[in-house]
Amino acid sequence: MMRTPENLTDTTVAAWEAVRAAGPLVQCLTNAVTTNFTANVLLALGAAPAMVDIPGEAGPFATVASGVLINLGTPAAEQREAMLEAARAAADGGTPWVLDPVAIGVLPVRTRLAAELRALRPTVVRGNASEILALDGAGAGGRGVDAADAVDDAVAAAHRIARATGGVVAVSGATDAVTDGETVVRLGNGHELLTRVTGGGCALGAVMAAFAGVVEDRLAAAVAAITAYNVAAERAAEASEGPGSFAVAFLDAIAGLDAGTLRARAVIA
Amino acid sequence: MMRTPENLTDTTVAAWEAVRAAGPLVQCLTNAVTTNFTANVLLALGAAPAMVDIPGEAGPFATVASGVLINLGTPAAEQREAMLEAARAAADGGTPWVLDPVAIGVLPVRTRLAAELRALRPTVVRGNASEILALDGAGAGGRGVDAADAVDDAVAAAHRIARATGGVVAVSGATDAVTDGETVVRLGNGHELLTRVTGGGCALGAVMAAFAGVVEDRLAAAVAAITAYNVAAERAAEASEGPGSFAVAFLDAIAGLDAGTLRARAVIA
Amino acid sequence: MMRTPENLTDTTVAAWEAVRAAGPLVQCLTNAVTTNFTANVLLALGAAPAMVDIPGEAGPFATVASGVLINLGTPAAEQREAMLEAARAAADGGTPWVLDPVAIGVLPVRTRLAAELRALRPTVVRGNASEILALDGAGAGGRGVDAADAVDDAVAAAHRIARATGGVVAVSGATDAVTDGETVVRLGNGHELLTRVTGGGCALGAVMAAFAGVVEDRLAAAVAAITAYNVAAERAAEASEGPGSFAVAFLDAIAGLDAGTLRARAVIA
Repeated sequence: MMRTPENLTDTTVAAWEAVRAAGPLVQCLTNAVTTNFTANVLLALGAAPAMVDIPGEAGPFATVASGVLINLGTPAAEQREAMLEAARAAADGGTPWVLDPVAIGVLPVRTRLAAELRALRPTVVRGNASEILALDGAGAGGRGVDAADAVDDAVAAAHRIARATGGVVAVSGATDAVTDGETVVRLGNGHELLTRVTGGGCALGAVMAAFAGVVEDRLAAAVAAITAYNVAAERAAEASEGPGSFAVAFLDAIAGLDAGTLRARAVIA
Repeated sequence: MMRTPENLTDTTVAAWEAVRAAGPLVQCLTNAVTTNFTANVLLALGAAPAMVDIPGEAGPFATVASGVLINLGTPAAEQREAMLEAARAAADGGTPWVLDPVAIGVLPVRTRLAAELRALRPTVVRGNASEILALDGAGAGGRGVDAADAVDDAVAAAHRIARATGGVVAVSGATDAVTDGETVVRLGNGHELLTRVTGGGCALGAVMAAFAGVVEDRLAAAVAAITAYNVAAERAAEASEGPGSFAVAFLDAIAGLDAGTLRARAVIA
Repeated sequence: MMRTPENLTDTTVAAWEAVRAAGPLVQCLTNAVTTNFTANVLLALGAAPAMVDIPGEAGPFATVASGVLINLGTPAAEQREAMLEAARAAADGGTPWVLDPVAIGVLPVRTRLAAELRALRPTVVRGNASEILALDGAGAGGRGVDAADAVDDAVAAAHRIARATGGVVAVSGATDAVTDGETVVRLGNGHELLTRVTGGGCALGAVMAAFAGVVEDRLAAAVAAITAYNVAAERAAEASEGPGSFAVAFLDAIAGLDAGTLRARAVIA
């Protein structure tokens, strides 16, 4: 398929409607800080969250879930074991799964785990520029990461990861970049307040798992998830007086988002 | 006592006032996703939450708490051990305790744990129809559970569990059913938005533990807890524009609920 | 420096501006109940939260963080190990760290841990009167603690802890007391609704770590953190209809607090 801004806007709206209609079951193995917000974002989206993250349950559940999120924010030992179990089961069972390698590069335990998970070929990787650079480094043998890296500096790394995993890689920033190892798409929606609420990025990983669970075209699914999420953030910011009221309005905005608003606001290039 | 809708409305209002006056200490061993919301619901109610859920502390604390909640939403190994410790201490010490067997039947680790906990005779069991059917099956040797089960399909199972444990069993749904193994009471309050916020059911389990810690009559306590909770949800829904603002308004509504509103709105049959 | 209410108001305003300008990196090893709220409070403040609390990561990170919070609210075994690792690394590396000994005295596992942590000489201790009395007792050999202790009853204990650790100790209550083992300062700001939201005290511990990471004068940093936090609570209470809307307004109020409001409202004696 020829990728153009126009047809990616069309596929974004179609993906949104498909996710709302399907109500996908999204398994999350995520951090303790944002698990509540992430579950609420999924519920607002019309998806069904299931925070199944213990060994002995994580694997079997990954074979029945629509999509799986593995977020490395607070990876205690028992959860690390469950993450590997879930990723293997998802990979074996054909369940799309998202890896969010939070703060790798700086922190050693999760950096090693991310390398193991990367080798299981995540359907989607989502991170900021520093995390994507670190994940690329993890594959190649490790290198230093500066938390101030810009999105553009991580596009080549995202490309390499996408080619190695056969999946899609999204780099978040003021403008997001998404690639399937062929095309690179730039996404211009979003709002600074998303960075003032904990879980702004983590919950997006779960939304990407929801979209990947419903939409076959991986690149279109990622573009749609990020764009819908960020358009809701823009709407919420208009109704907010600060980060507290923004987080509340954001859940309302996700629940209330309609296809017309999404189409009118989408900035895809 | 003869159970009629009228006298159950009277006992509901009286129980509400007793809980507000007593400010019961409620120990929660609950899931990571909803622990914050649950604590905030208890505080809004005027109760004192204490999330004491590690081995070596969970048991001793269960003997001094007014009531205990054991919710199986994210049962990591250390918490499972603490749950059994707390349940045994509560049973030995006469502290009422609530079992919320989240997602049992589908997930193996918690299903085994629920069977062990059930054998310790929980004062209250609270779950959706599928969970109640699974808990009944767990006692009898296991059987498949469909998450789409209706409340009415689980009433016979609830009855059997209540008779086996000597406690009360509540089945949640559009209309809730509560039984002590003799009477079955139907409760008609609530709002669909409660299902769009994570912890809508989990926090109710904690509220049931608060009421059970104050009100001797177990059936009346359960009826009162569910009715007060659901009336607050109805009030909150009137002030909401979506699931985000609903969760906020719900905490305000619990804190602001008065006996007159509760009596006027209670739907007990 | 001579401590007067006037110059402590001046240092409070200056500290507020310094923290906003610096955006300190605050590592939190805190409880599962309030970790989300705590991260959001730090983000609203303009600080960068990092909930790094697993062994192998907690220690190295404590050497690069601006400040560290260790809160004993839900101290599972793996987190206890990480807490000791972080405290040792912070002490060795000169990173200021805050100990919040939640519910010690009553609960045995955390009481033992608090004694170990106290021996590592926390830069700041923050607790209610009962917790400060228990921490004093823990150092001296243990004694009973009544949860109803008043702030004044704990000032002597706070004094002893501050002298033993060389740090600052803050006792929370309707009026807070802060001491560095020499001066005792009384702080009169705050609002009762802070006690109706879970994490009202826990998030303050993180804010104190943020201020300690930026402001050299430990007593001035503690006074500033508590006063700014409590002034924001007063502002939020004016915009609230209950504990739910208060928590939201509180995050907005922290983000929106300005030096003029802080100076005009500060009650320091």
